[in-house]
Amino acid sequence: MSRHISEQYDLELSQISEQVMTMGGLVEQQVDDACNALIGHDPSLARRVKATEQQLNSMEVSLDDQCIGIIARRQPAASDLRDVICMMKSVADLERIGDEANRIASMALALAAVEMPASQYATFRSMHQTVLEILGNALDAFARKDAAMVPEILLADREVDTAYNNLVEECTKQTDQEGGSMMHALNLIWAARALERVGDHAKNIAEYVVYRVRGQDIRHSTVDQQTTDFGPNIGKDRTGPGDRAGTSDT
Amino acid sequence: MSRHISEQYDLELSQISEQVMTMGGLVEQQVDDACNALIGHDPSLARRVKATEQQLNSMEVSLDDQCIGIIARRQPAASDLRDVICMMKSVADLERIGDEANRIASMALALAAVEMPASQYATFRSMHQTVLEILGNALDAFARKDAAMVPEILLADREVDTAYNNLVEECTKQTDQEGGSMMHALNLIWAARALERVGDHAKNIAEYVVYRVRGQDIRHSTVDQQTTDFGPNIGKDRTGPGDRAGTSDT
Repeated sequence: MSRHISEQYDLELSQISEQVMTMGGLVEQQVDDACNALIGHDPSLARRVKATEQQLNSMEVSLDDQCIGIIARRQPAASDLRDVICMMKSVADLERIGDEANRIASMALALAAVEMPASQYATFRSMHQTVLEILGNALDAFARKDAAMVPEILLADREVDTAYNNLVEECTKQTDQEGGSMMHALNLIWAARALERVGDHAKNIAEYVVYRVRGQDIRHSTVDQQTTDFGPNIGKDRTGPGDRAGTSDT
Repeated sequence: MSRHISEQYDLELSQISEQVMTMGGLVEQQVDDACNALIGHDPSLARRVKATEQQLNSMEVSLDDQCIGIIARRQPAASDLRDVICMMKSVADLERIGDEANRIASMALALAAVEMPASQYATFRSMHQTVLEILGNALDAFARKDAAMVPEILLADREVDTAYNNLVEECTKQTDQEGGSMMHALNLIWAARALERVGDHAKNIAEYVVYRVRGQDIRHSTVDQQTTDFGPNIGKDRTGPGDRAGTSDT
């Protein structure tokens, strides 16, 4: 590309990137608000989260359109193309994080008038903090194009998976032994599951950063491959523990 | 594009498209096998599903790579670009359907030795059939670039959502009233939830077909917008009922 065209491309790309970051900020807020609504039994906050979801949907459609537009008009190759692809993929994951926040808000509404054992909320509360950190770090890695931040994100996502499994175990044990309402327990599990999925999507965004910076697709890598590139103890099955909780074959 | 280059492009694209269809066929098989393993209490079939998942992951990485390669080399615009983008997005959804099949297989292993009320399996069985139909139709619509098939797919996906909500209600009621094991009920709910998600991903693939053929992004459209374009009663919230089951605010 000539210098002039290349500068125009960079300008357009950085405008898109700024919008992705704005979307990321909104998504962070949605997740935080949804969790606070659940923990604080605050139905009006939950309703606010649900009312904002449409805004994220519009952002996704607009950003997707802009990304395809820049590919069609500027015909980028190599790392320029990777930049755009990484943005498109990140936007799709951000929108799905918005969906998960919406689910948590629904559970907050369902549980607003329900008393649950404090211990179960404690686990959810700690997941909330860790997931927000992961999401914040993934967005920072995206903004700074910093692949070096990624290993820590992948490791933290494993913590969330473990916390989620613990929560499922606590909830089912309590229901089975003390005869609580399964529907109430299930609502808290759904919310925790949504939070666990937020962590997975943040991890995806982190993986796209590696692809963007190094041209290397680390999704589905084996533990050994990821260890070689990114340090020890990284590389869990991408499916996540999610719905496997409570099965004997994980 | 000159005629020669355009023919080469078409050839490359149709080669990628064939591979997407192969991946689609494998994904269909995985979903079918996983459900049969669960319904038939067949752990060896479930293990076969889990062993095959890695193959789908490799297909995703390879197809993603080929799609980005064709954009970089051929620099398609307009409908040619939409073709490639539609394939990339479809591949991502196919891989996620593979993840869901893997989850169902895990639940099949967990439930292999457990007796559950036949009524609960009946609902799962009917979901299984409907979801396979939806997935098959979405893949047909993809192969034939037939946007006219899409409304029926979107409507059928709603049936699955309803069936899923019924299953959750049956399972929780049974557990609450008859004191069954919550973990067993939960495992069946997880499997049904994964199946419901398969329907959502198939719906996404159908929506990409509309984008591909008409250049129109119908994700997140309101009921009115979708109705205008696609006939009556279409256009539910994209989040799906999923985790909202059992809440009072849906």
